[in-house]
Amino acid sequence: MTRQQYAVIGMGRFGSSVAKQLYDAGQEVMGIDIEEKQVEDAELFITHGAVADTTVKATLKSLGIRNVDCVIVAIGSNMQASILTVLLLKEIGIKKVIAKALNEQHGQVLEKVGADWIVYPDKDMGERVAHQLLSPNVINFIELSKEYSIEEINIPENMVGKSLRELDIRANYNVSVIAVMSHGDILISPSSTQTIHKGDILIVIGKKQDLSALTKEE
Amino acid sequence: MTRQQYAVIGMGRFGSSVAKQLYDAGQEVMGIDIEEKQVEDAELFITHGAVADTTVKATLKSLGIRNVDCVIVAIGSNMQASILTVLLLKEIGIKKVIAKALNEQHGQVLEKVGADWIVYPDKDMGERVAHQLLSPNVINFIELSKEYSIEEINIPENMVGKSLRELDIRANYNVSVIAVMSHGDILISPSSTQTIHKGDILIVIGKKQDLSALTKEE
Amino acid sequence: MTRQQYAVIGMGRFGSSVAKQLYDAGQEVMGIDIEEKQVEDAELFITHGAVADTTVKATLKSLGIRNVDCVIVAIGSNMQASILTVLLLKEIGIKKVIAKALNEQHGQVLEKVGADWIVYPDKDMGERVAHQLLSPNVINFIELSKEYSIEEINIPENMVGKSLRELDIRANYNVSVIAVMSHGDILISPSSTQTIHKGDILIVIGKKQDLSALTKEE
Amino acid sequence: MTRQQYAVIGMGRFGSSVAKQLYDAGQEVMGIDIEEKQVEDAELFITHGAVADTTVKATLKSLGIRNVDCVIVAIGSNMQASILTVLLLKEIGIKKVIAKALNEQHGQVLEKVGADWIVYPDKDMGERVAHQLLSPNVINFIELSKEYSIEEINIPENMVGKSLRELDIRANYNVSVIAVMSHGDILISPSSTQTIHKGDILIVIGKKQDLSALTKEE
Amino acid sequence: MTRQQYAVIGMGRFGSSVAKQLYDAGQEVMGIDIEEKQVEDAELFITHGAVADTTVKATLKSLGIRNVDCVIVAIGSNMQASILTVLLLKEIGIKKVIAKALNEQHGQVLEKVGADWIVYPDKDMGERVAHQLLSPNVINFIELSKEYSIEEINIPENMVGKSLRELDIRANYNVSVIAVMSHGDILISPSSTQTIHKGDILIVIGKKQDLSALTKEE
Amino acid sequence: MTRQQYAVIGMGRFGSSVAKQLYDAGQEVMGIDIEEKQVEDAELFITHGAVADTTVKATLKSLGIRNVDCVIVAIGSNMQASILTVLLLKEIGIKKVIAKALNEQHGQVLEKVGADWIVYPDKDMGERVAHQLLSPNVINFIELSKEYSIEEINIPENMVGKSLRELDIRANYNVSVIAVMSHGDILISPSSTQTIHKGDILIVIGKKQDLSALTKEE
Amino acid sequence: MTRQQYAVIGMGRFGSSVAKQLYDAGQEVMGIDIEEKQVEDAELFITHGAVADTTVKATLKSLGIRNVDCVIVAIGSNMQASILTVLLLKEIGIKKVIAKALNEQHGQVLEKVGADWIVYPDKDMGERVAHQLLSPNVINFIELSKEYSIEEINIPENMVGKSLRELDIRANYNVSVIAVMSHGDILISPSSTQTIHKGDILIVIGKKQDLSALTKEE
Amino acid sequence: MTRQQYAVIGMGRFGSSVAKQLYDAGQEVMGIDIEEKQVEDAELFITHGAVADTTVKATLKSLGIRNVDCVIVAIGSNMQASILTVLLLKEIGIKKVIAKALNEQHGQVLEKVGADWIVYPDKDMGERVAHQLLSPNVINFIELSKEYSIEEINIPENMVGKSLRELDIRANYNVSVIAVMSHGDILISPSSTQTIHKGDILIVIGKKQDLSALTKEE
Repeated sequence: MTRQQYAVIGMGRFGSSVAKQLYDAGQEVMGIDIEEKQVEDAELFITHGAVADTTVKATLKSLGIRNVDCVIVAIGSNMQASILTVLLLKEIGIKKVIAKALNEQHGQVLEKVGADWIVYPDKDMGERVAHQLLSPNVINFIELSKEYSIEEINIPENMVGKSLRELDIRANYNVSVIAVMSHGDILISPSSTQTIHKGDILIVIGKKQDLSALTKEE
Repeated sequence: MTRQQYAVIGMGRFGSSVAKQLYDAGQEVMGIDIEEKQVEDAELFITHGAVADTTVKATLKSLGIRNVDCVIVAIGSNMQASILTVLLLKEIGIKKVIAKALNEQHGQVLEKVGADWIVYPDKDMGERVAHQLLSPNVINFIELSKEYSIEEINIPENMVGKSLRELDIRANYNVSVIAVMSHGDILISPSSTQTIHKGDILIVIGKKQDLSALTKEE
Repeated sequence: MTRQQYAVIGMGRFGSSVAKQLYDAGQEVMGIDIEEKQVEDAELFITHGAVADTTVKATLKSLGIRNVDCVIVAIGSNMQASILTVLLLKEIGIKKVIAKALNEQHGQVLEKVGADWIVYPDKDMGERVAHQLLSPNVINFIELSKEYSIEEINIPENMVGKSLRELDIRANYNVSVIAVMSHGDILISPSSTQTIHKGDILIVIGKKQDLSALTKEE
Repeated sequence: MTRQQYAVIGMGRFGSSVAKQLYDAGQEVMGIDIEEKQVEDAELFITHGAVADTTVKATLKSLGIRNVDCVIVAIGSNMQASILTVLLLKEIGIKKVIAKALNEQHGQVLEKVGADWIVYPDKDMGERVAHQLLSPNVINFIELSKEYSIEEINIPENMVGKSLRELDIRANYNVSVIAVMSHGDILISPSSTQTIHKGDILIVIGKKQDLSALTKEE
Repeated sequence: MTRQQYAVIGMGRFGSSVAKQLYDAGQEVMGIDIEEKQVEDAELFITHGAVADTTVKATLKSLGIRNVDCVIVAIGSNMQASILTVLLLKEIGIKKVIAKALNEQHGQVLEKVGADWIVYPDKDMGERVAHQLLSPNVINFIELSKEYSIEEINIPENMVGKSLRELDIRANYNVSVIAVMSHGDILISPSSTQTIHKGDILIVIGKKQDLSALTKEE
Repeated sequence: MTRQQYAVIGMGRFGSSVAKQLYDAGQEVMGIDIEEKQVEDAELFITHGAVADTTVKATLKSLGIRNVDCVIVAIGSNMQASILTVLLLKEIGIKKVIAKALNEQHGQVLEKVGADWIVYPDKDMGERVAHQLLSPNVINFIELSKEYSIEEINIPENMVGKSLRELDIRANYNVSVIAVMSHGDILISPSSTQTIHKGDILIVIGKKQDLSALTKEE
Repeated sequence: MTRQQYAVIGMGRFGSSVAKQLYDAGQEVMGIDIEEKQVEDAELFITHGAVADTTVKATLKSLGIRNVDCVIVAIGSNMQASILTVLLLKEIGIKKVIAKALNEQHGQVLEKVGADWIVYPDKDMGERVAHQLLSPNVINFIELSKEYSIEEINIPENMVGKSLRELDIRANYNVSVIAVMSHGDILISPSSTQTIHKGDILIVIGKKQDLSALTKEE
Repeated sequence: MTRQQYAVIGMGRFGSSVAKQLYDAGQEVMGIDIEEKQVEDAELFITHGAVADTTVKATLKSLGIRNVDCVIVAIGSNMQASILTVLLLKEIGIKKVIAKALNEQHGQVLEKVGADWIVYPDKDMGERVAHQLLSPNVINFIELSKEYSIEEINIPENMVGKSLRELDIRANYNVSVIAVMSHGDILISPSSTQTIHKGDILIVIGKKQDLSALTKEE
């Protein structure tokens, strides 16, 4: 992948996290905030910083933001500034503008003024936390569709010491085992003779309700 | 799964999102905030609400929170209130206390006063967004270990119209195809004759660097 | 004209002025503001009033605003509230939404979220005042196109006592006299024998630069 | 017209609009505000700027405002500052002082301390907007007296394709047609054979009630 | 003297002091303030009180202030409220309006909007204090004109024990002795044999410079 | 009188007025305030100025205030600062400290911490204004004791054109005429043949109730 | 000791601590604060509470505070309120008034307005903490005079296992042993055969410098 | 005792008092506060000062605080700052951290994040003041255990003029006399022939209830 140019507007916790990841991946990252302190605190993980009010077109242009491939508008709680900034960025011709929304209405406005991708950090993380509380054995998951998921689950107590053949998860739960993680090693498409040990983790794919039955075993 | 009792303290965006997910999953959810308006706005997705200052022990007890299985401390930006609330909840004897941290230091203090699980919504979401920007073909992913991931990826242009056998992804990229999603259908462990169409999505497992080579195809 | 239903959101000076004119013309006018005092102060020129936060969809609906023919969003200085209100009004299905903009950018966003007509009171009045200062003899005017205007002008000193034939304004200035106002009476298409008196007012139509030459006579 | 010297005190939206129009018309315009940022933002449309508290006599004098022909006091919402500034300007001997009033009482005080012309931007624009809403076919208008107006109106549907003679607007509505605008061209005193097309605009003069009957045709 | 009706607007220290004196002299005094607490604190020295915003005409009228003989506008530091209140009082037809001014400009505006008498408490008391500091032997004084004063002075040490004849103040200082105060008794037009004792006080009339020479004796 | 050294602490309206009077009388006046602007505004009527927090002993000393003959503590509304300043001034050894009190309690504390003279500007001016309202013919007065006053009064209508002998004020009112002011001239101990003209002013001495009877003549 | 009546004004941390101790000792304690919440929070350790502004004489009297034996003025940080309250309490005739001072100057003013005992909690506790840091073996102490102290000290390591006779503390350190505390028991005037064990505590009396030599043993 | 290095964080009244005592005892004391003024005011009793936000790890390290033997966290009222500072100090490896707590909960959190000693100045001083009020004859005391105390008490009236033998305090009150202070002299283990004079002070040891009986003598 070629080195790309990013700008992050709003160096709060969310913006800083995005910037840091991009910077650590070797990208060029400009960090912009209306508060000088925020930019200073970010100096270790941005290529260069700027203190600017991005709702003023002339200011925005003077930052040389036109050459940036993608701008992340991570403005904290000032909905108005977030909307005007997105409007101006699209007007200037930025191809990809990602914007953080505080709520659904904010998201709708951002879409109407041209944002290419809307992110809802609090809502999404809230959903992830709730999912984990509801299925404590599920360590992580990808929701593939309304029906299907892939899940990374802790081995239920009653499966310990048995081989995959004995367990016959496909037959009993209508779920496929993709991989087994044991002491840090990963066995992709494990053989049916593979024995499950205490502390092992299964990667499984299937319908949500079937997965749910499996993860409720104890 | 039996019906459980949850309490969410702090009905901001993150707290509301957690509460809504739990409520939609049929759980009993108490919603608590120091501001009356916040509790009112949440009335559609909580079992019952309370306006209370949770840093006062007597107040906390009077809410009958002792019987709750799990408390999520989602207090917005008042670090002190979040710390004192967690302290009191553990003192009262709540088994599972999940707390949102604003930054690493805050997280450390929360751990020392007894929080069982610390969540960093802004940091985590920032990382997810950055990941997606860096690998635009990756729709979603689970990081299994430092080396391995499962990824849900858009089909590169040059694979369209070919069968899995022709593509031989395992040989060429050292990556296993778990499933193919085509027009909403999911084929788990697809046969080698399966042809890939424009707009199909692959679910693959492998080493991160190998996955990275695959997702950079165009 | 049939009696119509209007709603004015934001009962500040501009909103009150719109409401009063509509009410005096016999229309039904609902007056809405987030501050109780503003609504109370307007009670003499609205059919009924409501204290409400119009950025909350449920609140907006509960006002029965769906049946209103036209809504004027005259929110003072809270740009965010103005944008969200317009968004919701269009979502609810209001046919005609007029919105006051604080500046050009604000106007652009309002347009993007669906406002049918954008008004800039300060900018427009500023232009009118400047026009009058620049042409002190012009009492009022309509700008027909970039080139043409109709103007209501004070008679220059040197025209007093002469007949329209003597003045031959069409020949001398390339401007047509539409009417002459004299002591409160209006003569439309005045005859060429009409004599101009001190204090008379001419209504003329022509190219702006020609009108300008005429109004600079003294 | 000779080049004149203007000063605008208060560079908010209204003041800026006045200043810009005057400047664009080639006049000398001094822009004054108590906030430095306001003056900076105006630098493109003022001859020179000053940051000053105009309620202090010595300060006002030091600006060399004595030589200015006309001062526009466009102070935003600080009624006290607006009153004291007008008082001092007249004391210093400024011939023409125009002042923006927030409401009727403010206007009365401004008049008593010597303002030559009082402007009510919000009230006046509110009236114009209401007028247009009440007569949607009227694009613009000049109120000549309590009885008479000139109006610029959209052609009613039922007039399309007819000649002015056929329509005989004078006989049917007691209104005179001054001009017809068709595709950007303006025909002053159009001949009776002129046919009206869809989208044409009429400029008419007459009694308000007669005009009202005409503009309500559909 | 017949019983009169007064109203005091603004029950701060100055207003309260005026109200108390008038009330103690048996007059009817209405006390008005925008703050409820101020009116309550004054209840012992007003006939009746009202909490009201006196810059609103309807409010002012509803207080029945039309029948009051004289209104004292003692509004603390809100210059705008003081100006608008005086304007409305004169509009309503109050014969005598006395207003406290914060500074000279404020005083000028108050005069222009119709105040009958302007009072400057801080300025006037400052002058009285300075006068006393400059002439410590002068207890009190009336300035009759630019040249003449009456003064109440402490007896200089060197006059004690002498008769008025011996002192011959008229000859020596060109000053007339009006009265001598001795142990609380007052001798008007004292005889020349009157002896001056330690602690006596002289009431004298004369030119300021002559009085000054006398009061500097020690 | 020798030139003295004064310091005024608190350059608000009252303090400035004291300072100006002293300065105009040729005294040396140091002006001190905690706000720089206040000191700057006073520069025309103080010998030198200082910006200082006078509640800090070291600061107070560093001003060289020890050599000042008299300090006027005219601190606006900060009761605490006024009390601490007086305390420190007496501790440092200032002979004469005059302090402005906001109310009676404040005055009591100031006395206890050592103030030599307490002034109540608002209360005193309020009393003077009330006195004048109650006796509109009295222009000025000195209260000599609880019983006696000297008053400067306008001539009642019914005395015009009569000689002092005819009027026999002493016999009729038990009041002595000290002087008559006529067109700016002052006649001390006027002869009994002196005729009173319209607009003349009498200076009289007597018991308050007798004076009151005289000033109520019309 | 007979039951006494106390009042504590200012129910912050210091005031609450005083009130609680007195209440626990069976005294009658009235708790007063200007904030309702503070009084409510104290309800478990006061006989009765009152919400009142104690700088208003009438309010203070209405509390029936005249019959109280002793008042503790524990007002937090409002120096002015603390001074005026003490002034009024002494005026009302309270015999014993204890007041908390924020600093030395505050203490001086409190003394001048009549406080009987001034307490400096922060200063005194700061001194105690510093003393303990400087002499870590000293658990507690009473300073009898500039020279002498009683101290409660941890046994130095090198004294363990020896009898008092062997140690001969009087001879070696010129310090008298008053008592020995061993496992919770106290031996007053211990015999010379008493052996010192690890963890014992000595109560000693002597000159400070001698005690210092002893406590520095290790 | 060797010279030690201390740092005090928070130079308010409590922190300053600790710092001053340590400095006066010859120790090296660094004074740190987030407000520059606080550090400046302390310059006379600290070895060197620093203005810093101690909740930022990098800042804390840059102060070279690692070499300090003991840190006193005397932060005023910002509970969060106090907690984070203690956390970081322990992380950095400071051996002894003393922290001031505002209340019990705060104290608990401080303990959990590693504070070695928690101080409650207001609570402790409140208890000392209450103790003295309850036993006015007790000048000072050390509480040795729940049962025993040493007290420094004023001689009751009825003991004056008697010898210790006559009084036989041990027999009558079950209390031992450790010392007698008379006119500044201290007699340790006084002989039984020692006569008690008016104003003498006794140092006694015994059970609290026995001491209480003695101190209630009058």
